[in-house]
Amino acid sequence: MSDYLPTPGDKFSFGLWTVGWPARDPFGAATRPPLDPVETVHRLADLGAYGVSFHDDDLVPFGSDDGERAAVVSRFRKALDETGLVVPMVTTNLFTHPVFKDGAFTANDRAVRRYALRKVMRNLDLAAELGAETYVFWGGREGSEVDSAKDIRAALDRFREGLDVLASYVIDCEYGIRFALEPKPNEPRGDILLPTVGHALAFISTLEHEEMVGLNPEVGHEQMSNLNFVHAVAQTLWHGKLFHIDLNGQHGPKFDQDLVFGHGDLISAFGLVDLLEHGGPDGGPAYDGPRHFDYKPLRTEDIDGVWQSAAANMRTYLLLKERAAAFRSDPEVQEALAASGVPDLSTPTLAEGETFSSLVADKTAYEQFDADGAASRGCGFGRLDQLAIEHLLGAR
Amino acid sequence: MSDYLPTPGDKFSFGLWTVGWPARDPFGAATRPPLDPVETVHRLADLGAYGVSFHDDDLVPFGSDDGERAAVVSRFRKALDETGLVVPMVTTNLFTHPVFKDGAFTANDRAVRRYALRKVMRNLDLAAELGAETYVFWGGREGSEVDSAKDIRAALDRFREGLDVLASYVIDCEYGIRFALEPKPNEPRGDILLPTVGHALAFISTLEHEEMVGLNPEVGHEQMSNLNFVHAVAQTLWHGKLFHIDLNGQHGPKFDQDLVFGHGDLISAFGLVDLLEHGGPDGGPAYDGPRHFDYKPLRTEDIDGVWQSAAANMRTYLLLKERAAAFRSDPEVQEALAASGVPDLSTPTLAEGETFSSLVADKTAYEQFDADGAASRGCGFGRLDQLAIEHLLGAR
Amino acid sequence: MSDYLPTPGDKFSFGLWTVGWPARDPFGAATRPPLDPVETVHRLADLGAYGVSFHDDDLVPFGSDDGERAAVVSRFRKALDETGLVVPMVTTNLFTHPVFKDGAFTANDRAVRRYALRKVMRNLDLAAELGAETYVFWGGREGSEVDSAKDIRAALDRFREGLDVLASYVIDCEYGIRFALEPKPNEPRGDILLPTVGHALAFISTLEHEEMVGLNPEVGHEQMSNLNFVHAVAQTLWHGKLFHIDLNGQHGPKFDQDLVFGHGDLISAFGLVDLLEHGGPDGGPAYDGPRHFDYKPLRTEDIDGVWQSAAANMRTYLLLKERAAAFRSDPEVQEALAASGVPDLSTPTLAEGETFSSLVADKTAYEQFDADGAASRGCGFGRLDQLAIEHLLGAR
Amino acid sequence: MSDYLPTPGDKFSFGLWTVGWPARDPFGAATRPPLDPVETVHRLADLGAYGVSFHDDDLVPFGSDDGERAAVVSRFRKALDETGLVVPMVTTNLFTHPVFKDGAFTANDRAVRRYALRKVMRNLDLAAELGAETYVFWGGREGSEVDSAKDIRAALDRFREGLDVLASYVIDCEYGIRFALEPKPNEPRGDILLPTVGHALAFISTLEHEEMVGLNPEVGHEQMSNLNFVHAVAQTLWHGKLFHIDLNGQHGPKFDQDLVFGHGDLISAFGLVDLLEHGGPDGGPAYDGPRHFDYKPLRTEDIDGVWQSAAANMRTYLLLKERAAAFRSDPEVQEALAASGVPDLSTPTLAEGETFSSLVADKTAYEQFDADGAASRGCGFGRLDQLAIEHLLGAR
Repeated sequence: MSDYLPTPGDKFSFGLWTVGWPARDPFGAATRPPLDPVETVHRLADLGAYGVSFHDDDLVPFGSDDGERAAVVSRFRKALDETGLVVPMVTTNLFTHPVFKDGAFTANDRAVRRYALRKVMRNLDLAAELGAETYVFWGGREGSEVDSAKDIRAALDRFREGLDVLASYVIDCEYGIRFALEPKPNEPRGDILLPTVGHALAFISTLEHEEMVGLNPEVGHEQMSNLNFVHAVAQTLWHGKLFHIDLNGQHGPKFDQDLVFGHGDLISAFGLVDLLEHGGPDGGPAYDGPRHFDYKPLRTEDIDGVWQSAAANMRTYLLLKERAAAFRSDPEVQEALAASGVPDLSTPTLAEGETFSSLVADKTAYEQFDADGAASRGCGFGRLDQLAIEHLLGAR
Repeated sequence: MSDYLPTPGDKFSFGLWTVGWPARDPFGAATRPPLDPVETVHRLADLGAYGVSFHDDDLVPFGSDDGERAAVVSRFRKALDETGLVVPMVTTNLFTHPVFKDGAFTANDRAVRRYALRKVMRNLDLAAELGAETYVFWGGREGSEVDSAKDIRAALDRFREGLDVLASYVIDCEYGIRFALEPKPNEPRGDILLPTVGHALAFISTLEHEEMVGLNPEVGHEQMSNLNFVHAVAQTLWHGKLFHIDLNGQHGPKFDQDLVFGHGDLISAFGLVDLLEHGGPDGGPAYDGPRHFDYKPLRTEDIDGVWQSAAANMRTYLLLKERAAAFRSDPEVQEALAASGVPDLSTPTLAEGETFSSLVADKTAYEQFDADGAASRGCGFGRLDQLAIEHLLGAR
Repeated sequence: MSDYLPTPGDKFSFGLWTVGWPARDPFGAATRPPLDPVETVHRLADLGAYGVSFHDDDLVPFGSDDGERAAVVSRFRKALDETGLVVPMVTTNLFTHPVFKDGAFTANDRAVRRYALRKVMRNLDLAAELGAETYVFWGGREGSEVDSAKDIRAALDRFREGLDVLASYVIDCEYGIRFALEPKPNEPRGDILLPTVGHALAFISTLEHEEMVGLNPEVGHEQMSNLNFVHAVAQTLWHGKLFHIDLNGQHGPKFDQDLVFGHGDLISAFGLVDLLEHGGPDGGPAYDGPRHFDYKPLRTEDIDGVWQSAAANMRTYLLLKERAAAFRSDPEVQEALAASGVPDLSTPTLAEGETFSSLVADKTAYEQFDADGAASRGCGFGRLDQLAIEHLLGAR
Repeated sequence: MSDYLPTPGDKFSFGLWTVGWPARDPFGAATRPPLDPVETVHRLADLGAYGVSFHDDDLVPFGSDDGERAAVVSRFRKALDETGLVVPMVTTNLFTHPVFKDGAFTANDRAVRRYALRKVMRNLDLAAELGAETYVFWGGREGSEVDSAKDIRAALDRFREGLDVLASYVIDCEYGIRFALEPKPNEPRGDILLPTVGHALAFISTLEHEEMVGLNPEVGHEQMSNLNFVHAVAQTLWHGKLFHIDLNGQHGPKFDQDLVFGHGDLISAFGLVDLLEHGGPDGGPAYDGPRHFDYKPLRTEDIDGVWQSAAANMRTYLLLKERAAAFRSDPEVQEALAASGVPDLSTPTLAEGETFSSLVADKTAYEQFDADGAASRGCGFGRLDQLAIEHLLGAR
């Protein structure tokens, strides 16, 4: 089992709020005491992680003055220095305090919107100070339960305005930070704005500094809408917008479970790791950023269980990575992919230099095309599916 | 009840395939005979519709030669002339024939992709001939069941290539047609590309002629992912991409039901009609295109039931339109909207001329902001919700 | 609007935990202060409710000794006496305290199971003292996230054992209380035991005192599995097990929303009220127990919004009741029901005295049956649907 | 890979309609020609299956007279004799012909109900003749789309009446056949009666001959409601009602996919095989009936793909069976199960002879119980989850 021990080179990172979740849920009180962020840094480093991320309020209690904040940050930075852990990503808590009950950037109350921008700016300074390269925006409260109570188009205007202002700030400060939006369909709001990877990608295309804004897709968030997460990440890559990723597990459309990575839809997790690790042009990684686990240890677990679950995320990822490598290098798989015409889809439909006119002129394309003959050829997709399952099961 | 009789001015349209559905389903044989398109045109006109739409194969049987096609079209056009019905939209059947079993524009088989483009081009000629202004693309077979069997990024390349080629064709032919993509998450494929309004909007932003490509959102398709359809349409409008709309009903994540409009999520249907009819800048319509019903009469119905269901779609729309007008003009609603701050969201978060620097300098925005005080104010959204329900119920 | 003012005769009841929900959710802190149960009793009475229900810990803080408890109860009883409000139902909180993190009656830890039984018994005494006739069991923590961590058959054994013991206790104490199980598919556990009305009905059939155990179905809980709630209640009535009911709203498979009744699937709410109020043998009520609202005022609301939402539940119910009465008494509806053969389903398939032998001998039943002819008759269901929608909309 | 070759001792069976599905779907024409049942028998036998099942109309075309039927059956029986394949289960097609558009046993039209009973009786004779021990009832058309169009309680009366009559017939004929109901939530009807395992179990408890009626749960059908299938089968076993099982794959709440077993939720498939194979009292099988695959080969496949997919079902099952055996025999798993208290749940909550009175008298159970202390112990469920995943991945 030593084969699957993570190292910093694997780029595994965790949020302070993941292992640190006190396990309070909508129907139950906390089952675990708070974790000291400094202890978390040391424990994550011991387990082989390379990075830690946080919301402002995870590290610096809400309402802290500058002095308190400096002290907390100094102590945290010391732990980073001691362990070598980095802070690849930082984000803002714009959802816990009741002031955000109707949203932050899109609250109907303009004063709340202004406050939210300032809260982010303050934390962007800290993110830059700690060397973060990615700043995540999860707009968990940007949404509604009542259609008539939220002017969605105005809300999108304000969302865009907020991100444009913040992007200008980062650029002006020369922070070297990129933004990553994290879509989610619902919970805590009945319906959240930018509910999927697709909606967020479309929104980004309208931003003033769209080049510095990408996505942070989360496994479970897309699966809460029963959408295919591998497709979602592939489209995100296609748009050049996979800036960060949140790995976890989910069992379909229900509350946000935040299970350990792989402990939900395992076949999809395999497809995802295969895409991330082998989807690049040369069969190498299609993504080189942090493999960030945004999960919650089960509420039933004590602190030992917490650290076991943290390790389980990384170990499962490494196992899937190995399985995916074996899948890709299996000559039978290569042959099956070719038989299914998978690589052929990269060939343009029109030949080089061809236009619609020459396509119209090509009688083999339509007038002489044997539709029934083409239809009779099997695609061989079931065989590929079974090959993938067997590699996943370690049976090849 | 005569108040709710549709007229052509209401711009109601139906697909030939809707009333003409022979009611064959995955587990059952057809329960109704085929409808003659000419009869359909007459019956729809009698009921007060203004338009009819079709897939190529709905009107002209698959495989017809040019002569057969001309005869069919001539007879159809005569019915249009006699009734005054228009053809606002046309689309292509790229899903029924087995040749499309792995997709059309994104089939792994390049010959199928070329054939698909030609099939569309042939039908674009007919669409233009009949005066259609919108051409819909529903890529029902563009997808996969097996992640490793479809290179999603290559598929998006091919999808884009196909639409770029077809847009060039339309432009070159000076057809005056715009394209409208219709998203759907699944069925008949396990997962379909561009599964939601969001994914399709993002995709459009990458097209060569993106200005001539918009969306044809369908109520039930978004609701199959349990997404908020009113939000979906609002975001589509926000992007300037509501080119067409498919109205029907659905009961959440299950097979595609295509119920009569309003016979699924009635509150959402109310919100939708309110948005379409009163979401414009002056409280007028936010959308002036066809109100197109893409539904299926229940398989249990005979032909009388078919025409009753066609009428039911229009009548329900008109009832909701009246309810929405009453809602908007109710002074109590206006007062409640103001009390909830709904109009305030249209005020930019930064004052005119303000930048992030002046926001940082504004101590009232953060340092002196009373978060707890702001949090304590109720939003009044529940009251708005109840007002909407009571107007919907005709109780105000 | 005065027509829709509730009176105690309408039998509307609320849980203390509904209006009293402090609006803490998985991602946010409380937005409202706690409510004094005594104030709640007075406000509910003012609004026209007839009953109030509670979990033990809603009224008597967890861990209170007998003296503290007696004081609290005395004060509460005084409020009941002053207002005339009754306590039709009581239940136990077996989910908030961390000791129940793995369940109560089905916790793997036997000591927890024994503690849970005692906690219920203590509260049954109070329920009896306050005159409650129904005691609800919602087993929110009885479940699992990990299949191998819970022996489901053993869990069902323990669940049954627990209910058998408690039933014996109630019988022995001559408390005049019946039990009502409340199913839910998930949340807070990943999967909860007895996830639907069906599973719970089946389970009840195995209990020692099954005659005193029925159901408390909740609108949103069945809709979280996208099941038809009207069907669920009808089957519950068919088994003679509708002992209590929880009314609220939900938008399909997502987290438990607990919206105001009718503010989710409005058509289903209409069908439900129609069943409850007009599903009895003579067209009268099929259920005469409390119409209990188990909802949560939106987290965005202040205390005024809380009481408005309480009133909205009752008013919506009364509106739907009036609409359903009009639907039932409409001659066109009666005619449509007859044309659709709805009443014919009450005629046994075999004639009186007929056996399978006589059925076999009846050549008209099979050998001479005209299947195609029977198939060609339309069912007229679409017409019924539209009639229902129009009555719901107050348009008839 | 020879380790995973199926033999008749594995009791794998297939429906004629599975491999024989011509791949017609709601949006597409058939992509494969019909299969001759005799060829199917031979091919399944070659692949290592032991049994074949069918709907009456799969084998004998609808409307065949007795002579045609006898000829077909004789030819089929010859193939069985030649191959040694058995017919463990037979069922009736009560859904394809339009006459069943509103249901069979619960059609509003009494003549249809009588016809349906006769159609079943005729096929029960054939089932008995071929030695089937189980007769499955899937009521795919027993349901509704419109609440007011179906009196659910009357429908349940008729459903019960139908099964009671048929049970009497089987008993009178001394056929040695048991009935197995197959629940499904929707598709083809909008909502189907007895939508889950739970509803069907409850219904069975009301039947005249309930001892001869059990269930045929199907993986995908429960997962269409996002319910836990392992829990469903465990509850079915607990009621003594697992008479048959349908194995396949599904990706959550969407149309009925009927994927190859394991190709949907793989972790759940592992849990299921573990339960079936190792859930018995001594760690042996909890179920000894057919492992019946009710799946559809992907519409993209040709006939070679069909047979590959049939083999894939069996091979995946055998792989999971081996993984589950390794999981159960791993000392670390045994230790983890004990540490999690999984076996403790089999210990009754009350000691032998204990009653509620002695429980009340036990101060350690409540008055002296340390709830906080008990709450602080971790459950170790995450560790079990990871152990299961690693065994599933073949990594232990």
